[in-house]
Amino acid sequence: MCGTCGCSTVITLEEKVLAKNDHLAGHNRELFAARGVRAINLMSSPGSGKTTLLERTLRAVTDRPVAVIEGDQETALDADRIRATGCPVVQVNTGAGCHLDAAMVRDAVERLDPAPGTLLFIENVGNLVCPALFDLGEDARVVVVSVTEGTDKPLKYPAMFAAADLVVVNKLDLLPYVDFDLELCRKYLGSRAVVALSATRGDQVELWLEWLTG
Amino acid sequence: MCGTCGCSTVITLEEKVLAKNDHLAGHNRELFAARGVRAINLMSSPGSGKTTLLERTLRAVTDRPVAVIEGDQETALDADRIRATGCPVVQVNTGAGCHLDAAMVRDAVERLDPAPGTLLFIENVGNLVCPALFDLGEDARVVVVSVTEGTDKPLKYPAMFAAADLVVVNKLDLLPYVDFDLELCRKYLGSRAVVALSATRGDQVELWLEWLTG
Repeated sequence: MCGTCGCSTVITLEEKVLAKNDHLAGHNRELFAARGVRAINLMSSPGSGKTTLLERTLRAVTDRPVAVIEGDQETALDADRIRATGCPVVQVNTGAGCHLDAAMVRDAVERLDPAPGTLLFIENVGNLVCPALFDLGEDARVVVVSVTEGTDKPLKYPAMFAAADLVVVNKLDLLPYVDFDLELCRKYLGSRAVVALSATRGDQVELWLEWLTG
Repeated sequence: MCGTCGCSTVITLEEKVLAKNDHLAGHNRELFAARGVRAINLMSSPGSGKTTLLERTLRAVTDRPVAVIEGDQETALDADRIRATGCPVVQVNTGAGCHLDAAMVRDAVERLDPAPGTLLFIENVGNLVCPALFDLGEDARVVVVSVTEGTDKPLKYPAMFAAADLVVVNKLDLLPYVDFDLELCRKYLGSRAVVALSATRGDQVELWLEWLTG
């Protein structure tokens, strides 16, 4: 959150914004529970491969309904990719906004009207900072980081990784070509659950699917 | 900026925060001009290779003083890497903050006390959204995007790219292994200046150095 002023007005207003968001997230959580919807909030840097992982996931999950909410500043490119898999999807464009919030998710869920038992993926705006602050009412938070981004990301963006129920280390297919230490990254992540995979090539995607549906 | 409330109080306060930042950025700009300092604001997603590009740049620029301000949520890892090149550096940790602002840069410049004629690099927090809103008083904005992030980033994060004086497409060494269309990316960037290079391997870094010192 913005520290330009540092004045108490800004801090109080930020607290109010977050409190209002938390309240709405609570309503989303009740709605998901009532319908038996499992909601997964997917967060990462831009270009870490969230949409590619979703494309593969949606084709693999056939024993329950799936749906997707796509968050981006602009374009419906990701929604188009998701729709091509046959999955219901709603695109949310945040404009200048740097994250999804609970109100955006509530409105998108109204439009999606997910069937009971749906596995709902919420692909957040690509941003390793701001989305960590905003509860969407999700059941689980998944942070995707790719091996091309460097081993140090859990140390440099601690708030995001502290909030993760699962960390997916993606783009294992590029591991031979980059300076990334998977064991050291796991060490930085401490006791957090980690799945390393390649969404593009499919390596170890079964571990992710097991986590999702287990 | 946050759209959770959508109320006019939030919008007015955001305008005030940005107006105050713009005012301070103006002072930074005057200070830079008075000292003959050329300030470059480097922005990108996390892990796009800004620090690696700086390491190579600082070793190559020998005809004038250089200095670096490093922005990260946490750690002094990047400052340590810069210091190892022999370059003066100040690390700014933003904590929960998602961008550098003009006041942070002013304070860091006071500590750096750059010599006349210094080429000053300001490495912003890795974030393709929020830093675009905050003028730091820089002479030029450089956006780094790596080929591993996908061709569509200029379309999905338009505010960041619209503000760029130069776009560096990095990690050309990984081009054979990823689905990235350099010509299409250039097309998306329109008339914007583009340099494609590999900071790791050194390909075409001379084009970047020409732009910097030209």
